[in-house]
Amino acid sequence: MGGLITFTSDFGTSEEWVGAVKGVILSVNPRAVIVDISHHIPPFDIGKGAFVLAAALPHMPRGVHLAVVDPGVGTRRLAVVLECARGDFLVGPDNGLLLPAAERLGGVNRAYFLENRDFFRHPVHPTFHARDLFAPVAAHLSLGVDPSEMGMAMEVEDLVPAPWGRAREGEGAVYASVIDVDRFGSLRLNVYPEQVERLGYRLGDRVMVGLGEGEMEVVLASTFGEVEVGTPLLFEDSSGVMALGINGGSLASRTGSRPGDAVIIYGPADRGLAGG
Amino acid sequence: MGGLITFTSDFGTSEEWVGAVKGVILSVNPRAVIVDISHHIPPFDIGKGAFVLAAALPHMPRGVHLAVVDPGVGTRRLAVVLECARGDFLVGPDNGLLLPAAERLGGVNRAYFLENRDFFRHPVHPTFHARDLFAPVAAHLSLGVDPSEMGMAMEVEDLVPAPWGRAREGEGAVYASVIDVDRFGSLRLNVYPEQVERLGYRLGDRVMVGLGEGEMEVVLASTFGEVEVGTPLLFEDSSGVMALGINGGSLASRTGSRPGDAVIIYGPADRGLAGG
Amino acid sequence: MGGLITFTSDFGTSEEWVGAVKGVILSVNPRAVIVDISHHIPPFDIGKGAFVLAAALPHMPRGVHLAVVDPGVGTRRLAVVLECARGDFLVGPDNGLLLPAAERLGGVNRAYFLENRDFFRHPVHPTFHARDLFAPVAAHLSLGVDPSEMGMAMEVEDLVPAPWGRAREGEGAVYASVIDVDRFGSLRLNVYPEQVERLGYRLGDRVMVGLGEGEMEVVLASTFGEVEVGTPLLFEDSSGVMALGINGGSLASRTGSRPGDAVIIYGPADRGLAGG
Repeated sequence: MGGLITFTSDFGTSEEWVGAVKGVILSVNPRAVIVDISHHIPPFDIGKGAFVLAAALPHMPRGVHLAVVDPGVGTRRLAVVLECARGDFLVGPDNGLLLPAAERLGGVNRAYFLENRDFFRHPVHPTFHARDLFAPVAAHLSLGVDPSEMGMAMEVEDLVPAPWGRAREGEGAVYASVIDVDRFGSLRLNVYPEQVERLGYRLGDRVMVGLGEGEMEVVLASTFGEVEVGTPLLFEDSSGVMALGINGGSLASRTGSRPGDAVIIYGPADRGLAGG
Repeated sequence: MGGLITFTSDFGTSEEWVGAVKGVILSVNPRAVIVDISHHIPPFDIGKGAFVLAAALPHMPRGVHLAVVDPGVGTRRLAVVLECARGDFLVGPDNGLLLPAAERLGGVNRAYFLENRDFFRHPVHPTFHARDLFAPVAAHLSLGVDPSEMGMAMEVEDLVPAPWGRAREGEGAVYASVIDVDRFGSLRLNVYPEQVERLGYRLGDRVMVGLGEGEMEVVLASTFGEVEVGTPLLFEDSSGVMALGINGGSLASRTGSRPGDAVIIYGPADRGLAGG
Repeated sequence: MGGLITFTSDFGTSEEWVGAVKGVILSVNPRAVIVDISHHIPPFDIGKGAFVLAAALPHMPRGVHLAVVDPGVGTRRLAVVLECARGDFLVGPDNGLLLPAAERLGGVNRAYFLENRDFFRHPVHPTFHARDLFAPVAAHLSLGVDPSEMGMAMEVEDLVPAPWGRAREGEGAVYASVIDVDRFGSLRLNVYPEQVERLGYRLGDRVMVGLGEGEMEVVLASTFGEVEVGTPLLFEDSSGVMALGINGGSLASRTGSRPGDAVIIYGPADRGLAGG
């Protein structure tokens, strides 16, 4: 384990919050190596937090991963630790934030409530569980405490579901959603490369895509430079999901698309229909 | 000590300044563990810097704490190190920035001018004391150099006072100030929970508060979820001070309040008068 | 070497990119000490990235310095490692980004293409060489791998030139450019203090400066406090270059100057002509 603790939040870096959490971690485990992933998840944006976590963690060494985007803090939402197949521990609120990352780390092997107050900082402030509950739990896990000591086991299927799942395949098309808009205006989708392959497409093919009210022909390409400036493309994003973009521009600005918008990737058989 | 050096500044993260300071620290003490608290204190905002520092440091392990919000750099303001009762060293300009944190670490035991040029980087640039003076001093302290080697002792009462002190209690009311507005629009006050208790209030009580020109009835609550949406409340902020907020909104936006604004918390005996 | 890896980029901190790069580094060298310089270089702004790197690295201990501002990723631009005279390794794209820093670290001793795929992460994503190519190479260098194992040697003169060079001296004047505007609105120039000295100026002298279409008399001063409020000055910036500023204001706002703008510093002999 080596004491690696990654930390992702929507706290921003203008207040004392990130520092206080790190202080609590280092007070419990002075040898912890804390690596920030992002503290600029938009406030309470569970979908974006889940995306960033799922895209970053597969590249991290095995460790403890603390993630707090927690609109429900102070309510009855649960606090959990998930042990993943790869051996990592994910610590955070039970609101779906952790699940896409857990899936990319091999899925959840064991899940526990965080109930054992011996591992909390006291008093626990009602709106700062990151500092008083999640941080000390993460630090104790990094010291080798077994997650079963943190509280009762829970069934994985009882966890609050992820903010988005894998796109549905059916009727010669893939029914997807925009799960993230990156800062270049590309639309990252809940679609994996093999789902596009299963439709029968190969690099260079033209693909009809339904986006909001309209439809659009895009080129399946491996990178922006393979298409003309101004041409939209469907490509495998560096995060591992498929994305829609436009060479030399912002597709999000052009289409007004936002996370949650429906996207349909039509199979080749539908092209005549869709296009005609 | 273990080589922990926390670092707080108003440098932002778009220039080379934070990196240069860290480089100087690591050049003096390659084993230093540098933990950023915030570099997004608004430029020259000593009050906000003092607040963030005072809220974060009590959660940090004992260490050296470098803090630079320094509108007076290049003038005759002094550079100081404060040894706190808990054993921490605070390093920075003598402009009040360090004092609220020092108080929360048990108060200042010893204070010294930073005068001994043997511990500086040379040449000392007139506008970058963080890199050339404070950083190497902090690094040497983290290696175990005694602060008395840094320069002459000074009297604690000769330090420039904190940007805000504890609210004044008197005549059945607490006379306070807004010391910070957090990003959710809550007004953090220079009032501690025991000061509200001494007025005779208990959780759930209604409290009359004077804010700027107006008055407002708020509920003393432990968290937002305990009051109706749209209801203002007085609560203990996670930083340890009392704060005014509104469930589901930004009190700062509604009232236009800013740091420095006067706030009066009336005792129960005054309620009829204040309200009538 | 001690495993120090600094990291500078235009990735921002809202996406997973910085975290993914750090994860790859730590997967190769779990003992690496990663120090962020800035991830808020404006997207694709090679000039600003080069400036920040050149200003920060001289203060860093010897180490591996990873820098990625890479508008050409996915095209035929080369990836390189530069060994500097001081013993540091600079890793990044061959687009001029690394050269001003290399010069300040004593110049480039050896340069190699990054071609050896044994040191890459696979598959290499076409738009994320930072994660898949530069990060693992930097991590292997921090473990002591010789840069000659990374690929073929290249001639230093074949590198893409720096975004700006040292100002030209001639005809009793220095012909310079604005290379950076800092957040206080000072104009940092590609002029070094000895170039102003060679014109024959001393502290306190009045200096005629051509800026865009106009001319302006400034005072050669060591810091803002030495001139009246509202007076423009020419001073040695903390980064080591000369800069133009104005006491109590933003010179960039007043003049509309931007990086790349031409600046002429006239010698004393030209003052009558320039001013008359």
